[in-house]
Parts: sequence; C-alpha cells; structure tokens
Amino acid sequence: MRAAVFRNGSITVDTLPDPVPEQGQVLVKTCACGICGTDLHAAKFTAEFVGLAGRTGGRWTMDPTRDVVFGHEFCAEVIEYGPNTPARLKPGTLVVSMPLTLSGQTVQGIGYSNDVAGGFAQYMPLADRMLLPVPNGLSAQHAALTEPIAVGWHAVQSARLTPEDVPVVVGCGPVGLAVIAALKIRGVHPIIAADYSPGRRALALKMGADIVVNPAEVSPYETWKTVATPEGFDGSRYAQLFGLGPKLRPGVIFECVGVPGVIEQIMEAAPAAARIVVVGVCMQTDRFEPFFGIVKQLNVQFVLAYTPQEFAESLEHIAEGRVNVTPLVTGTVSLDGVGSAFEELGNPEKHAKVIVDPWA
Amino acid sequence: MRAAVFRNGSITVDTLPDPVPEQGQVLVKTCACGICGTDLHAAKFTAEFVGLAGRTGGRWTMDPTRDVVFGHEFCAEVIEYGPNTPARLKPGTLVVSMPLTLSGQTVQGIGYSNDVAGGFAQYMPLADRMLLPVPNGLSAQHAALTEPIAVGWHAVQSARLTPEDVPVVVGCGPVGLAVIAALKIRGVHPIIAADYSPGRRALALKMGADIVVNPAEVSPYETWKTVATPEGFDGSRYAQLFGLGPKLRPGVIFECVGVPGVIEQIMEAAPAAARIVVVGVCMQTDRFEPFFGIVKQLNVQFVLAYTPQEFAESLEHIAEGRVNVTPLVTGTVSLDGVGSAFEELGNPEKHAKVIVDPWA
Repeated sequence: MRAAVFRNGSITVDTLPDPVPEQGQVLVKTCACGICGTDLHAAKFTAEFVGLAGRTGGRWTMDPTRDVVFGHEFCAEVIEYGPNTPARLKPGTLVVSMPLTLSGQTVQGIGYSNDVAGGFAQYMPLADRMLLPVPNGLSAQHAALTEPIAVGWHAVQSARLTPEDVPVVVGCGPVGLAVIAALKIRGVHPIIAADYSPGRRALALKMGADIVVNPAEVSPYETWKTVATPEGFDGSRYAQLFGLGPKLRPGVIFECVGVPGVIEQIMEAAPAAARIVVVGVCMQTDRFEPFFGIVKQLNVQFVLAYTPQEFAESLEHIAEGRVNVTPLVTGTVSLDGVGSAFEELGNPEKHAKVIVDPWA
Repeated sequence: MRAAVFRNGSITVDTLPDPVPEQGQVLVKTCACGICGTDLHAAKFTAEFVGLAGRTGGRWTMDPTRDVVFGHEFCAEVIEYGPNTPARLKPGTLVVSMPLTLSGQTVQGIGYSNDVAGGFAQYMPLADRMLLPVPNGLSAQHAALTEPIAVGWHAVQSARLTPEDVPVVVGCGPVGLAVIAALKIRGVHPIIAADYSPGRRALALKMGADIVVNPAEVSPYETWKTVATPEGFDGSRYAQLFGLGPKLRPGVIFECVGVPGVIEQIMEAAPAAARIVVVGVCMQTDRFEPFFGIVKQLNVQFVLAYTPQEFAESLEHIAEGRVNVTPLVTGTVSLDGVGSAFEELGNPEKHAKVIVDPWA
C-alpha cells in the first residue's frame, strides 16, 4: 500500500506492506483522514514530543529513528475480517473508530505508532470491537471529523457547565472551533470567541460563536465582563464598600492555543473564580505565576481526548446535523500533498482542517 | 503604643501613636498574634511581594518605603468603641476578626497596610461588625489560631471532596497542618501527609494524619496507590489488556509548600485524574509542563483565605475541641523577639507557629 511516511524528520510517500488483519481485527481502506495540530507538532518538535511522552510513561511513545505513519482522524471502509472474527458489519460499510487497535491482548495507539500505520496510509488493521458504522449517508470526509469534534465535546463535558456560565474560547483553530460547536449543542450562551485571524473569527461565527473579538483590539475578558454583569447594576456603590462587584455570571475560559505563555496570559487576565479548561496541547515547558491563580482562586482543568461514549456521541452530532462540519474542511490533499499541507497549515487564514485522501 | 515595625527591610521595635477608633470601629488590645509564612515572605522578598500584589490590582499593596506593622492572625480584647458605634460586646470581651477593618466606606486589610497597624502592635482599630466573641473560655493564644485554621478549612471546603477520595497533604508546615485538621473534621480517610522533617511528621500525626511519609524515602503517591487500590484486586490482568488498572479511589493532593517547582513535581508524580489543591502561596515565577496536566487530565484548584462563614466555623471548631491547636504553638515571643523569631521560623524542627504577645 502507499503511505505518507514520517522518516528522518520529513514526510515521504513510500510503499509499505499491506497490513494483514489478526484475530479481532478488521482490514479497512482509509477513505479520509484529517491532519491534526499534534501531527504538525510531532513532526516539528520530535525530540520534545518523544521525550515528554516517555516521561508520562505513555502510549504516545514512538521511536523517531523508525518509520511512523501519522493520521488518527479517519473514516474508512470495511474490507475483510481477521480469522475467527465475527463479521458484524458488511464489507463496504463506512466506519469510524477511536484511534486504537487491539493486537492480541495489547492496545496499540494509531497515529504515532511504529508498528501500525495510521490514516495517512491506504489500509489500517482496526479493532473489530471499536468500529462504529457511519449513519445517515454521511460522507467519509465529514465522518472523519468525528475525532476532532469529540475533542471539543469532551472538553465541554469536562467543564462542569451550568446555564449561568459565560464561556470564552481563546483560539479558534480546529480545537477551538470544535469547542464552540460543543458549547452550541450544550446551549450555554453567549459564546465569546477570540482569535487574531479574521478568517478564524469568521469560522467561529459559522460554528456557533455569538460574539467574536480580535484580542489585539478588544480584551475577551472585558467582553465577558459586559455580558456577565446583571443589567441595570450600578457597580460604583458596591465597589466602594467592599472592593467587590455584583454576583457576575462565572467565566469559563477554554484555552485552545497550546503554545507557551497562553495559560499564564489567561491566568493574569481571567476574572476572579474563573475556571480555565486547557484543551490546547502545549508540549513545551511553560512559565506561570501561581500567585495569580491563588489571589483569584482560579480552577484549571486539563483535558485530553474523549471517552468512547463521547466519541460515539460526536459521530451522532455530526450525522444528525447538530454540528455542521462543512466550514471546517478547507482543503483536501492526496498522499503526495501531505508534506506541503504540513507547511501550509501554519497559515490560519488559509486553513482549518485539511483532509487526506490516500486514494486520490 | 509599642509595635514591631517592618522598616527598611527589617523588624524594629518602636513606639507609634495609639489608634483612635472611628465610627464603626472598636479599639482592641492585641492579646496574641501568630507569625505567618506570608509575613516571612513579605519581609524577605519585599519587592516581589509588592510587585505581584500590584499586578493583581490588589488589596495586599503596601509601600515598603513606609512603615508596616505585620500580623493578621490575632486575638484581642475589646477596649472602647468609636463614636456612634453600638457597644455590642462588653469591654474586656475576647474577640477575633478577619484581618480587615472598615474606615468609613473603605475596607482596609490588616497585616500589610501602611495605614493600619496589624497584630504585632499593642492596639488595633477593628471593625465593629467583624468581631466574633471567643466562646468557651478559649485562651487568646488558641483563639488566635482561628485564622490559619480557617485557611485549611477553606482549602478542604473548596476541594469538592467525596468519601471516596484519598487526600495527600504535601508539606506539613502550619498550612499543611491546618489542612490535616480540616480533613479530620470532614472525615475523609486515610489522610496521607508528607514532609521531610521528622518534627513536622510528628505534628501531622497529632493533628490527625493517618499515614505520614518522608518523601526522601517513600513516594506519597505510591502510598496513595496502595491505599486507593481495592483490596484483592489483581492488577496484572487489566493492565495487560488496556494499560489501565481498576477504579481507584481518587487522589486529592494538597500543595502546602508554596515554593517554586512543587506544583510541577506534583503534576509529574500525581495519578491520572487527580485533583490538586494549591494552598501554599508561591510568590515567585514558576515553571511547569502543561503536558503532564493534559495527559493525566489533572484539575488544579488554587485557593486563598476563607469566607466569613468559614472563619466563624473555624473558631467554633477550635472552641468545641474538634481541632486541638495545642501542638501547633511551638513558641511565644514578646515584641522584642519578633525579629529573631522571623529567623528561627526557617527551622522546621524547631517551630510550627510562634505567637507574639505584644504586652509581654
């Protein structure tokens, strides 16, 4: 099979042996696979990525001296079953799966493994029990967005939201956009979204943001304050007496940038008692002032990935039209285009999500 | 009146004008006032303390070029009321108060103010409406511990504890010991406490810790794991299949050290899904790896101080014998001894809480 292989620090298209499904596995043909920011990070900061993954005792461990085929946001078509594996879904069925497979009794991650090629290859050996059939005639391109939408859905499910909360989404790349889509489903309004890029702000509105701001011009926390203050409240009287204001609607800030310094910026600017949900994956050492957290009694909830339930719900959200993923897909490339897509994804005006079609 | 004054970077005993109570104020005679770690920090790292307080737009702002009288953990005796102030409590009544006073319509912090002397002075002008009478014939020394006990009580009240949780207290200085006392009242067991100092570990046991460990020898997180694993569970089978263990009792880690690096150490060593409650007040810039938080989906709750309700409850906890504060008091000094007590408090074997008696 053909695959876009990460080898010696860059992406090369090569021919690899077709995977042979073991017991419990299903050979699938990859129809569509999104490029994730984590893929870009693993390619660009490989040593850091591998080092940190090792320190977490983790499943993300890859050996960069060996070939790796990235790709963990995929939709595929059932081809054939391994030995002694019940054929639950007919060949030709379109499926999605969490990016894991089972090899005997061992769980293998898909997307950063040296042993199992990910979705930037033409075939994958998925786990029979992980497959979810794609409903409602949803296209493979759109079904492939189940994974990134699930990241946003999990973040929002982890935020302990109440209808009183006012969410602020910092960063409107694919992660922030998925968070906005999830907030819209949860019905917590108004959704405030901040990004320096006009293109990203336009996408944020399409995905369900109620208010978008350019943080170079308007502080999203000032916007929060205006929204969170009860109408008709005269702040001056209370402020004089106790240095306190009225009971504001709580701020819940979703960090969706994932670069050093952003958590600290949010901690310094966030309102008192805010909850910060860290969805962006910062893989560098970062600095912060604990004192800001202390004085404002902030809560920081780090989140990762999703539960199997949340993954299945996300597929349903897309298939039922509760999330419109059409605006997210800003490009499609063949395997030969993966390398240059990795470069182009640095430009927020041009791209949100690029989908790889390994058969184009 | 006599006072231990922080002037030009050191503590000097001097005579200051007696405060004159305004309307709404009560002149009190300070009977006992604890020395807090924050006092030591403000004295040793004054520029940082003032700089950070300024950036938080805060009430802790003090001008280090002017005199400051520290002391915010006090018990005092009612002397006389300001004009037009109802005499709710008889002169001679022993009282405690949150370290705030009202001057007209303005709230003034007590303990880091250039305008109102704190508890290392013989008299203070407290706010009438903040006074709580000391019940049950509790001594002034013990009642003065209401404030630090309230810090622990608030931290534990902010931790969203359930009976399933297993608390781990990192650092057994006065803050950690107050957290242990509060956990004991809440009845969440076993309480695991870690400190390098044998003296501090002995105090932790006296305050209610069930298990104490020296982190140089035994990891408190390994201790947590042993406690948190259901009895009779065979981990090997599950671990092989999913790289996961059984449903463990959640870990709730109280950071009670407050120096740079400790939050990061906890984030790296904490079990997955742990909640970290940051009670220690780290006033330096700190470093951390967000990736550990992300991969383990940690929650970090920063806390500060207490509510008026929690402060009143803490006085009651002491007065009713639910907290035995006797072991905490390791020394008493006169105003002349404050300067050297600031030095000696660096030695964890010698001291937990030193109480200043401004009339000794």
